[in-house]
Amino acid sequence: MMNIVTIGGGTGSFTVLSGLKKLDNVDLKALVTMADDGGSAGVLMDELGVLPTGDVRQCLVALSEHTQVVRELMNYRFTEGGLKGHSFGNIFLAALAKMTGDFSKGIEIAGEVLKVNGLVIPITRDKARLAVKLIDNSVIVGQANIYINGLRNLAVKKIFYKEKVKLYVDAKEAIKKADYIILGPGNYYCSVVPNLIVNGFKEALKQSKAKIIMPINLTNKLNQTTFWKASDYVKNTEKFLKYKIDFIVINNKSPSKEQIKKYKLEEGDGVLVEDDLGNDSRVVRAPLISNVIYKVNAGDTIAIHRAFIRHDSDKLAKCIKKIISK
Amino acid sequence: MMNIVTIGGGTGSFTVLSGLKKLDNVDLKALVTMADDGGSAGVLMDELGVLPTGDVRQCLVALSEHTQVVRELMNYRFTEGGLKGHSFGNIFLAALAKMTGDFSKGIEIAGEVLKVNGLVIPITRDKARLAVKLIDNSVIVGQANIYINGLRNLAVKKIFYKEKVKLYVDAKEAIKKADYIILGPGNYYCSVVPNLIVNGFKEALKQSKAKIIMPINLTNKLNQTTFWKASDYVKNTEKFLKYKIDFIVINNKSPSKEQIKKYKLEEGDGVLVEDDLGNDSRVVRAPLISNVIYKVNAGDTIAIHRAFIRHDSDKLAKCIKKIISK
Repeated sequence: MMNIVTIGGGTGSFTVLSGLKKLDNVDLKALVTMADDGGSAGVLMDELGVLPTGDVRQCLVALSEHTQVVRELMNYRFTEGGLKGHSFGNIFLAALAKMTGDFSKGIEIAGEVLKVNGLVIPITRDKARLAVKLIDNSVIVGQANIYINGLRNLAVKKIFYKEKVKLYVDAKEAIKKADYIILGPGNYYCSVVPNLIVNGFKEALKQSKAKIIMPINLTNKLNQTTFWKASDYVKNTEKFLKYKIDFIVINNKSPSKEQIKKYKLEEGDGVLVEDDLGNDSRVVRAPLISNVIYKVNAGDTIAIHRAFIRHDSDKLAKCIKKIISK
Repeated sequence: MMNIVTIGGGTGSFTVLSGLKKLDNVDLKALVTMADDGGSAGVLMDELGVLPTGDVRQCLVALSEHTQVVRELMNYRFTEGGLKGHSFGNIFLAALAKMTGDFSKGIEIAGEVLKVNGLVIPITRDKARLAVKLIDNSVIVGQANIYINGLRNLAVKKIFYKEKVKLYVDAKEAIKKADYIILGPGNYYCSVVPNLIVNGFKEALKQSKAKIIMPINLTNKLNQTTFWKASDYVKNTEKFLKYKIDFIVINNKSPSKEQIKKYKLEEGDGVLVEDDLGNDSRVVRAPLISNVIYKVNAGDTIAIHRAFIRHDSDKLAKCIKKIISK
C-alpha cells in the first residue's frame, strides 16, 4: 500500500483526488487548507464559529464512492430564501462540527456517510486568518480578500497568519507516514501556500521520507501570479518548504482556443504557465489538460473566479502513477 | 412478509416505527401527513416552495439503520445565525427536493443515505393547507395555527383542505397492499386526521383487505381533544374512515406523578385519555407507557408543545406483534 498525501484547497485537490482514488493500492489522505473565509463557508464561520467547510467538502466529494446524486447534493447551492448562497455540503459539515463540537470528528462522520475512500484532514484546527504583505509594505488580510481583490500585481514579500496556526496532529502523522506528497494544483497563494506556512509543517516534512510531486498549475492568476513561469512556481515553493521538490509535473498540451479566450476574459494576459524548465531531470511532461469547459454553478458567488482550464483527473492520476511505480 | 403501513405525523410515527422496525418479516411503509406548515419546515416551504419536511424527517430517522450520530444529526437544530431554528434534516430534505425537482424522489435518496429499513411516503404531493370549521362557524387555517392556537375548546364541525388534495399514488398502492394499517398515535387533528381526509384515501381503504389497528393516544391535547375518552377517538376516527377499526390498543399503566404534573402544566386538566371501552372485544390492553421524560431540543420552537408522556416504542411494537401474529 502506497501512502499518498495531497496538499491543497478545494478545486485543485478535487481534480487530483478524483483521479487518484481510482488507483489500486493507494492510501489517500487529503490535507486541506483552513484559510478560506469567503462565500458560504465564510458566512457559516462567522455565524456558527466553525472552521471553513468549502475545501473539505470538495475533497470529500472527490473521494466519495456514494451515488452520483449524493455527490451532487454536497455541491448543491440554494438559490432562494434564507439559505441562499449556501452549499448543502457546507451546511452538512457545519452541523456535524456544531453537533460533535469537533470539526475533524465531523469530517470523519461525513466521510462515513459519503463512503469516502481515504481521509480528509484539516491542515490545522486553529482559526487561520491569512494575510500577505506586499513589496510596498501594504497588508491584505483574509483569504477571500487576497483571492478576489488580488495583490495588485505587486510581489508578495511575506505570507503569514494573523494568529499562531499549528499543524493538526493528524496532518503531521500523515506527512510523516507519506511515501509521496502531492503539492497542488490549486490557487497558489490561497490554496497551496497556506498549508506550507502552518507552524510545524516544515518540521514534519523534515521527518518524512516522502518524495514531493508538484503538478504545476496550468494557468496563472490575475494580480497574483501573472506571467509566472513553471520555474517561478518551483522556486517559490522550495523557498517555503526549505526542501527540494522531487518531481515536477508539467502539462505539454495546449488548451483550445476557446478555453484560452474564455480564461483570458477572466484573467487578462499572462494566463498560461510557460514551461521554462528545459531539461531539468525532475520534470515529467504529459498531456494533462481537460477538454471540459467548466460551468459556474448557480448561486455560487465565488466560482465565477475559478479556473476554466483544468487538469484532466485521469490523465493527471496516470502520470502520477507512473512516477510512483518507478 | 407482512405488509404494515403506519399513518400519522412525526412524533407519534417515530415512536411506532422505532419499535416496529425491529420486528422480523415486516415490510414497513410510513405514510406521512403533508399538512405541517410551521417551524423550520414552514420556513423552508415558504422560501423554497418544497413540501413540509419535518414529519418525513422523523419517520426516516425512526427507520434509519445508520449510526446513532447520523440519526442525531438529522434532528440537530441550529441555534445561531441565519440557519437558526432549522433542523439539519429539514434542510437535507429540502435540498434533495430542490435538486431533484421531486419531493418523493428526494425522500427516496434520503432513505438510501440514511440506510432506511422501509419506505417513507408522503400522503399527498399537493400543497395541503389544512383548515377546521368550528361549531361557531369560525374557520382556522393552517396546521400550525390549529396546533398552537387550539380550537378554543369548541367542537370541530369540519376539517378540510383549502385546496384539492389528492392521495399520492405510492400511498394508494401501499394502502391497497397492506395487511395491517396502524393509525397513530399522534396529535389527532394535526397528524392523524389530515391523512384520512385526503381525496381518495377512503376509496383506497375500501379496496384494501388491511385490518386497522389504532393505538389510542395516551394524552389529550388542550383545546383540541380535552377530556376525550378512548371511545371518542374511536368514534370520530370511524366517522372519518367510514370503516370499522379492527383493533384498539390501549395503555393500562398509569404515568408517574411527575409525568402527569409536567404534562398538566402544559395542557391543563383532562390530560389523560380515559379507557371507557369496557369489554369491547376489539380492545387490546397492555402497559405501553414510556418512563422517559422527553426533553425539548434547543432551538426547537414547536417541540415545546409536544407530548411529555409517550408510548414506549418496544412495548407498543410487542403489542402490535401479538395482534398480527394471531
